[in-house]
Amino acid sequence: MKAVVRRNSTLVDTDMAEPVPGEGQVLVKTLVCGICGSDLHALHHLDHMVAMTRRAGGNDTIDPASDMVFGHEFSAEILDFGPGCERLLKAGTPVVSMPAAIGPLGSELVGYSNRFPGGFAEQMVLQEALLLPVPNGLDAERAALTEPMAVGEHAVASANITAQSVALVIGCGPVGLSVIAALKARGVGPVIATDLSAARRAAAERLGADIVLNPREHSPHDRWEGFDVPATLASFGAARLLGRSVRDAVIFECVGVPGMLQNLIENVPPTAQIMVVGVCMESDSIEPSLAINKQLDLKFVFGYAPEEFAATLHAIAEGQRDVTPIISGVVGRSEVADAFADLAKGGDCIKMLVDPSRA
Amino acid sequence: MKAVVRRNSTLVDTDMAEPVPGEGQVLVKTLVCGICGSDLHALHHLDHMVAMTRRAGGNDTIDPASDMVFGHEFSAEILDFGPGCERLLKAGTPVVSMPAAIGPLGSELVGYSNRFPGGFAEQMVLQEALLLPVPNGLDAERAALTEPMAVGEHAVASANITAQSVALVIGCGPVGLSVIAALKARGVGPVIATDLSAARRAAAERLGADIVLNPREHSPHDRWEGFDVPATLASFGAARLLGRSVRDAVIFECVGVPGMLQNLIENVPPTAQIMVVGVCMESDSIEPSLAINKQLDLKFVFGYAPEEFAATLHAIAEGQRDVTPIISGVVGRSEVADAFADLAKGGDCIKMLVDPSRA
Repeated sequence: MKAVVRRNSTLVDTDMAEPVPGEGQVLVKTLVCGICGSDLHALHHLDHMVAMTRRAGGNDTIDPASDMVFGHEFSAEILDFGPGCERLLKAGTPVVSMPAAIGPLGSELVGYSNRFPGGFAEQMVLQEALLLPVPNGLDAERAALTEPMAVGEHAVASANITAQSVALVIGCGPVGLSVIAALKARGVGPVIATDLSAARRAAAERLGADIVLNPREHSPHDRWEGFDVPATLASFGAARLLGRSVRDAVIFECVGVPGMLQNLIENVPPTAQIMVVGVCMESDSIEPSLAINKQLDLKFVFGYAPEEFAATLHAIAEGQRDVTPIISGVVGRSEVADAFADLAKGGDCIKMLVDPSRA
Repeated sequence: MKAVVRRNSTLVDTDMAEPVPGEGQVLVKTLVCGICGSDLHALHHLDHMVAMTRRAGGNDTIDPASDMVFGHEFSAEILDFGPGCERLLKAGTPVVSMPAAIGPLGSELVGYSNRFPGGFAEQMVLQEALLLPVPNGLDAERAALTEPMAVGEHAVASANITAQSVALVIGCGPVGLSVIAALKARGVGPVIATDLSAARRAAAERLGADIVLNPREHSPHDRWEGFDVPATLASFGAARLLGRSVRDAVIFECVGVPGMLQNLIENVPPTAQIMVVGVCMESDSIEPSLAINKQLDLKFVFGYAPEEFAATLHAIAEGQRDVTPIISGVVGRSEVADAFADLAKGGDCIKMLVDPSRA
C-alpha cells in the first residue's frame, strides 16, 4: 500500500506492506486523516516525545530510528476482519476510532507506533471493540474531526464550569476552536477568544465565540471587570466583603509555548482556573508565590475518555457542533511534507487533512 | 508600649506609641503570637513581598523603609473600645481574630502594616467585627495556633477529597502539620508525611499521620501502588480498561522551595491533585508536557475564609485538633531576633511563640 512514512525525521511517500489484523482487530481503508500539532513536533523531536512518555510511566514501545506512519485523527471504512471478531459492523461501514490498538508489546497509539501505521497510510489495523460507526451520513472529512474535537470536549468537561463562568480561550488553532465549540455547546457565555491570525479569529467567530481579539491590539484581561469578574485581589476582596455575587474566570491555554503560563499567572483574575490544554514541549518558568497570592488552579488536561469521544462524534453528526470552519483543506500524499512545513510556520492554516489514496 | 520592631531589615526591641482604636475598633493586649515563615522572608525581603502583593492586585499600603511590627498569629485580651463599637464582648475577654484591620488606606494586614502593629507588640488595634471569643477556657498559646491551623483547614477544604483519597504531605513544618491535622479530622487515611527533621516527623506522628518518612531514606512515591493508587500511566490505563476501582492521590506541597513542584510532577501518580500550600518565593521551573501527559492538577491555595478560621478555633477549643505537638516554645522580646535566626536555619524547631510582655 501507499503511505507517507516518517523516516529519519523526514516524510517519504512510499510503498509499504499492508498491515494484518490480529485477534479482535479489523483492517480498514483510511478515508481521510488530520495533521495534528503533535505530529509536527514528533517529526523532528520523536526522541523527546518518547522520553516524556517513559517519564510519565506510559507504555514504552516506540523506536524513533525505525519507520513510523503518523495520523491519529482519521475516519475510515471497514475492509476485512481478523480472527475472533464479532462482526457487528459490516465491511464498507464508515467508522472512527480512538487511536489505540493492542499488539505484542501491549497497548499502542495508532499513528505513534512502529507496528500500527496511522492514517497517512492507505490502510490501518484498528481494534474492533473501539470502532464507532459514523452516523447520519456524516461525510468522512467532518467525521475525521472527531478526535481533535474530543480534546476540547474533554478539556471543558474537566473544568469546573457553572452558569457564573466567563471563559477565555487563548489560541484559536484546532485545540482552541474545539474548546470554543464545547463551551458554546454548554451555553457558556461570554466566551472570549484570542489569536494572532485573522483566519483563526474568523473561525472562532463562526464557532460562536462572543468576543474575539487580536492580542497584539487588545488584552483580553481588560475585559474581566465588565463581566462582573473581580480582576484584582482588592476588587475580589471587596466583593466578598460586600457579599456581592460575582462571576468566575476559566481560561483555556491552547497555545503551548514557554511563557504563556506565567503570562496568565500574572494577568488572570484571582481564583481563576487555568486549564492547560496546549502542550508546551520545553521547560517553562513560573512564579509560584504569585499563583498562591491569587489562589490559581492550573489544571493540565490531555486526551479524552471513550464516552467523550463517542459524544463528540454524535454532536458533530447531529449538527450540534459545526466543524466546517476548522477544515482548511485536503492534500494528497505528495503534499504532506509541504503541509507540515506550512503548519509549523503558524499563520492562517487551521486543520489540514490528508487523503492517503491521493498521490 | 514595648514592641519588637522591624527596622531596616533588623528586629529591634524598643518603645513605641500605643495604637489608638478608630471607629469600630478595639484595643487589645497581646497575650502571645507565633512567628510565621512569612515573617522570616519579610524581615529581609519585604520589598519582594510588597511587589508580589502589588502584582497580585492586592492593596498596596506598605512602605518597607518605615517601621513595622510583625505578628499575625496572635491571641489577645480586650482592653478598650473605640467609638461606635457594639461592645458585645466585655473588656478582659480573651479573643482571636483574622489579622485584618481597616485604616485610612483601606484594608490592611495586622502584622504587615506600617499603621497596625502586629502581635510582637504589647498592644494591637483590631476590628471589633472580626473578634472571636476564645471558648472553653482554651489557653492563650493554643488559641494563637488558630491562624496557622486555619491555613491547613483551608488547604484541605480546597482539595477534592473523597473516601478514595490517599494523601501525601511534603514537609512537616507548621503548615504541613496543620494540613495533617485537617486531613485526620476528616478521617482521610492513609496520610503519608515526609520531613528531613526527626522532631517534625515525631510531631506528624503525634498528629495522626499514618506513615512518616525521611525522604533521604525512603521515597514516599514507592508507596502508591500498595494503597491501590495506580502509580504510572500504564497501570492507570490498565486499571481503567479493566474497570477496576482505584484510589486517587492528593499531595500537599508544604515546603515552598524551587524544584519541589517539578519533583512532584515527575513522581506523583497520573491524575494526582497537587495542592501548593508552601510559598516558594523564587521563580521555579516546570515541564508542562509531563504535567499534561499525567493530567495533573496544580492548585495554589492561600489563607482561609472567615468561616474556616472560626471552625478551626472551635476544633482546637473542643479538643478535636491537638496543637500541642506544634508548639516548640515561648520567647520574650529580647529573644525574638535569635528565634528568627534559628527558624531560618530550618531543623527541629516548629512553631515559636512570642510573649511581647516578656523582656
